[in-house]
Amino acid sequence: MKQGNKLYEGKAKILFETDDPELLIQYFKDDASAFNAKKLGHIESKGVFNNKISTRLFHEVEKNRIPTHFVKFLSEREMLVKRVDIIMVEVVLRNVIAGNLAKRMGLEEGKVLPQPIIDLHLKDDSLDDPLINEDTAVAFDLATHEELAQMRKYTLKINRILMEFFGSRNVNLIDFKLEFGRCAADGGKLLLADEITPDGCRLWEMGSGRKMDKDRFRRDLGNIEATYAEVERLVTS
Amino acid sequence: MKQGNKLYEGKAKILFETDDPELLIQYFKDDASAFNAKKLGHIESKGVFNNKISTRLFHEVEKNRIPTHFVKFLSEREMLVKRVDIIMVEVVLRNVIAGNLAKRMGLEEGKVLPQPIIDLHLKDDSLDDPLINEDTAVAFDLATHEELAQMRKYTLKINRILMEFFGSRNVNLIDFKLEFGRCAADGGKLLLADEITPDGCRLWEMGSGRKMDKDRFRRDLGNIEATYAEVERLVTS
Repeated sequence: MKQGNKLYEGKAKILFETDDPELLIQYFKDDASAFNAKKLGHIESKGVFNNKISTRLFHEVEKNRIPTHFVKFLSEREMLVKRVDIIMVEVVLRNVIAGNLAKRMGLEEGKVLPQPIIDLHLKDDSLDDPLINEDTAVAFDLATHEELAQMRKYTLKINRILMEFFGSRNVNLIDFKLEFGRCAADGGKLLLADEITPDGCRLWEMGSGRKMDKDRFRRDLGNIEATYAEVERLVTS
Repeated sequence: MKQGNKLYEGKAKILFETDDPELLIQYFKDDASAFNAKKLGHIESKGVFNNKISTRLFHEVEKNRIPTHFVKFLSEREMLVKRVDIIMVEVVLRNVIAGNLAKRMGLEEGKVLPQPIIDLHLKDDSLDDPLINEDTAVAFDLATHEELAQMRKYTLKINRILMEFFGSRNVNLIDFKLEFGRCAADGGKLLLADEITPDGCRLWEMGSGRKMDKDRFRRDLGNIEATYAEVERLVTS
């Protein structure tokens, strides 16, 4: 697969065109950012770990019949993906109170929610990815009610898949962020896109509660590279 | 109706018990607050105007078979209301982009939305009334899905009633905030509570776009008392 023009460069990944107009190369960088790019840094080999973690987790999700943009692993930092139009609504599922929800509601982190909460955020760093609701997403033509319902259904199912996957590895899935896209080559079909990595999930070791995700970078907890390496070993084992 | 103990004092109103345990006196003050009590002030006779405006608008809503806590007008600043447990979720309906929505989404005020947006906010000044979604309201036991569905249905209907009411008076209803309560004496029945006044609505004169609501206080636009008096005359005429 020949790498073509750079189509898009984000905080953690680059998308390149290929000689097939329906396929892109997703390249994982070592750049780290937090608080909507107000904190920037570098996590050595993060791109390599995240590509491997995401590859394994996309397999797991696909195995459970949820369509994703993943096509195949190409090299240490590259995966081949289907070209999609990203829906500008980030979907966050929360099993346990943490992060933005804790801050917004003035609560301590760590309490298990009686049922998962799904939050929608406008994907816009310059506005700090504001929380929005379904009415707003539809009113601003970001997605249809039908797409949002499908995204919600997929997200709840992915939660069950990932909770079991991480649970069997002694890790609690606290929350995670997903992005979806429409695949024009597939009649606008909704696909899980982007990545599933410790950049966008909160993972706490069972028992100890040790943080195994980007909060180590956000909150300067140290052992950042070693933790990403550990999650990669856990996930691919 | 004898006035009993003070039950609750808010930013703009006081609730007193009466000799009937199922009824309260709602007393309207002249105190004005904005930005969750970070800006405080006094609007001469606001309490009198708001009591009259609210009385008229509750009548209008009741006439259209939406149950409210309103029982009767008692005196210039007092109305008799049913005792309810206030649901700690404020319901904001928006017909036109303004205020918090404009700020959050980085948009200019004034664009008409393709359909109304309903935002839910946690009623908590200390947290700046954060936006929440239905999942969160239910997870934190603020309301049930059934109550939220009913609140949404009532709010959409109240929007149609008030748009027509203000429209016939040459005023555009931009957005408004409602609060609902459960009436224990009535088997927990959901009632529209609180008030409907320029404190919690945005009203723009048709044509000129002149603001006829609390934004005159929030944004120091002057003519505050005169505008409340004008809305009172318009509404009760």
